Amino acid sequence: MTYDQLAGRKLNRIEAVSDGVFAIALTLLVLDIKVPISSTIHTEKDLFNALAALAPKFLSYFLSFVTLGIFWTAHSVQYTYIERGDRHLNWLSLFFLLFVSVMPFTTAFLSEHIEFRVSIGLYWLNIFFLGLIIYFHWVYAYNHHCLNLPENERIPVDHAIRKRAFVAQSLYAFGALLCFINNYLSITFIICVQLYFAIGLGFGKKKGKPK
Amino acid sequence: MTYDQLAGRKLNRIEAVSDGVFAIALTLLVLDIKVPISSTIHTEKDLFNALAALAPKFLSYFLSFVTLGIFWTAHSVQYTYIERGDRHLNWLSLFFLLFVSVMPFTTAFLSEHIEFRVSIGLYWLNIFFLGLIIYFHWVYAYNHHCLNLPENERIPVDHAIRKRAFVAQSLYAFGALLCFINNYLSITFIICVQLYFAIGLGFGKKKGKPK
Amino acid sequence: MTYDQLAGRKLNRIEAVSDGVFAIALTLLVLDIKVPISSTIHTEKDLFNALAALAPKFLSYFLSFVTLGIFWTAHSVQYTYIERGDRHLNWLSLFFLLFVSVMPFTTAFLSEHIEFRVSIGLYWLNIFFLGLIIYFHWVYAYNHHCLNLPENERIPVDHAIRKRAFVAQSLYAFGALLCFINNYLSITFIICVQLYFAIGLGFGKKKGKPK
Amino acid sequence: MTYDQLAGRKLNRIEAVSDGVFAIALTLLVLDIKVPISSTIHTEKDLFNALAALAPKFLSYFLSFVTLGIFWTAHSVQYTYIERGDRHLNWLSLFFLLFVSVMPFTTAFLSEHIEFRVSIGLYWLNIFFLGLIIYFHWVYAYNHHCLNLPENERIPVDHAIRKRAFVAQSLYAFGALLCFINNYLSITFIICVQLYFAIGLGFGKKKGKPK
Repeated sequence: MTYDQLAGRKLNRIEAVSDGVFAIALTLLVLDIKVPISSTIHTEKDLFNALAALAPKFLSYFLSFVTLGIFWTAHSVQYTYIERGDRHLNWLSLFFLLFVSVMPFTTAFLSEHIEFRVSIGLYWLNIFFLGLIIYFHWVYAYNHHCLNLPENERIPVDHAIRKRAFVAQSLYAFGALLCFINNYLSITFIICVQLYFAIGLGFGKKKGKPK
Repeated sequence: MTYDQLAGRKLNRIEAVSDGVFAIALTLLVLDIKVPISSTIHTEKDLFNALAALAPKFLSYFLSFVTLGIFWTAHSVQYTYIERGDRHLNWLSLFFLLFVSVMPFTTAFLSEHIEFRVSIGLYWLNIFFLGLIIYFHWVYAYNHHCLNLPENERIPVDHAIRKRAFVAQSLYAFGALLCFINNYLSITFIICVQLYFAIGLGFGKKKGKPK
Repeated sequence: MTYDQLAGRKLNRIEAVSDGVFAIALTLLVLDIKVPISSTIHTEKDLFNALAALAPKFLSYFLSFVTLGIFWTAHSVQYTYIERGDRHLNWLSLFFLLFVSVMPFTTAFLSEHIEFRVSIGLYWLNIFFLGLIIYFHWVYAYNHHCLNLPENERIPVDHAIRKRAFVAQSLYAFGALLCFINNYLSITFIICVQLYFAIGLGFGKKKGKPK
Repeated sequence: MTYDQLAGRKLNRIEAVSDGVFAIALTLLVLDIKVPISSTIHTEKDLFNALAALAPKFLSYFLSFVTLGIFWTAHSVQYTYIERGDRHLNWLSLFFLLFVSVMPFTTAFLSEHIEFRVSIGLYWLNIFFLGLIIYFHWVYAYNHHCLNLPENERIPVDHAIRKRAFVAQSLYAFGALLCFINNYLSITFIICVQLYFAIGLGFGKKKGKPK
């Protein structure tokens, strides 16, 4: 018996540390939005304008919050079915978290340099690696019998998860490429994709749907 | 089967990430209170005065701590009864957390610009959206059969939760409007409302009450 | 049925948010220790001296880490026995967390102004309120039938918890008063008390002891 | 019955606070990487160069993320088997967390002063204490009957955990000593050791292996 065979079995720990890292990344994003200092503000209008000037910061904050929300949901979906882990699953989760914890940096980088394509490229790279690792995380769990899925759900669930990963990553890549036309177009497109995934269209359709 | 049908089923994950975001927001608030620097302090009295000068910061810190506590309690109450989730409930929780994580910013904004109505308006907007989303979160859960409630508790529990939301939001709105008379009056009123909800009146009355 | 009767029943949420606030407070403490900047350092000896100059910061960091550890343990001990909650227990926990989250501030205040009695007084006040609230938390739980304790353990467990609170707070108060002789004496005394509680004396005596 | 006999029994609390501290330490590391300020950047190339100049920061960030991941895994492995706790186990966990929470400091110290041996020595000291405490944590749990292990797994599991601790610490010590030849050699060696432990070699070999 080696140490490596013992690692990563406690799934509740992986879930707990992941929720922790996501919670902090979601909240740290806001630290990049600085309160306008008192001495430069003399009237209500000054303050309102100073607040309005923070709009791009709020926009990139919102974008990253939704992005992290999407990947947190993806991680959570996979652990609905994963019932045993090993060290490789453990480390795939940890490397996934590496790119979660870097998100506040790439977001601040984007909002500071929104007019340069380098910052959009970096931001996209962050999303791309999040998607890539969470995809392999699922493939690994599927191939190494880590899942608890009734036989008849196995194929459809696997198909649904893989399809979403491909569609989402294609749309992000397309959105990132739009920066060669215009940076704001690129960001707007990515935000729309995120909102589509987050809010969806058929909000009312699900009513009374059995589990 | 689509990916959207798989999302948001793991309620313990939603609760964990929510507790994480609340815990961080509650603690980040304190980072806005800066320790007076050593070089300006020469006597015990200097230090005491420097500490006393931080009183408005402590006040807004306290206000926001209690506000977050109230909404955390509200979220926790709803999950006493919610026993299954879907992607819409998942995202309602995440958007709720968006306004939780913004709280340290609106609090710092308020304590820096306490003499302007814009900052009270922004702070109230934050509370308003927290209340709005957590209200729809409950309505959605109620209407989409996500609750585990014995038939005879269904109506009274629903009624109690909705009533609290309406009363609280009416009082907050009234408090915010008081800023057209005086800002400190407005804040004092909101703090009193919060303390009433947090501490209540009948602390002693519940003794020995069966569950 | 009122909303107040619904609040605070989910004990796992109270424990989760408490662990979150403690985890953050424990870690934020380190943010007060600044890395010496590169431009002032030219030799290994410079760097070593710059590191050594941080010793008081490390000392107050260590002191507060142990303090928070002691109160986290106290909270955890109580929840070994608490099996149901209500809104008052909920809010006693939240106000307890208020003083936990303030700890990084009072610690930074102490380490910046270690030569003034005001900072020791403030630090002691923080410890005092932590102790006071966690004491009333237990008394409330005990008096309102929130505990799950076999009849024969009821009195000894209650006695052990109350006695510890009294002994600890008396020693802290005595330690704080020592600042009228000398501040470093005061802090050293408090650290010794903390270490005594944390490490204890009979490390070896418990071996093989049945649960 | 004394208070000390009551402390540390709630293992889920120890695990929760540990996951919290790890999650924050993992994420705080990124705060040391500052976004280049807008006014100094005029072209895409400027921005790319400014990003490239952050490479050493990213390197030390990556190093520490993997280090913390390794020790988090070690803590998680031990709690796969620990089924009861006492105050000493409780405090061994807390002192372990003390060195986890200090990691963002020693990492920032290393990346600011990468050319000095003092910073490598400090970094190694941090890793050494993490290893030392988690080792004694296991030895204590093993000797004080805190484990739930079938008789036939007792020796091999114990042996695997102790052996890993010795091998890892020997390699870290050797890596740290390499700083007397060259600092970058030393850091590269430690990173390689970490990656070996994290990723391992036989990624494909485990396929289909029964639990």
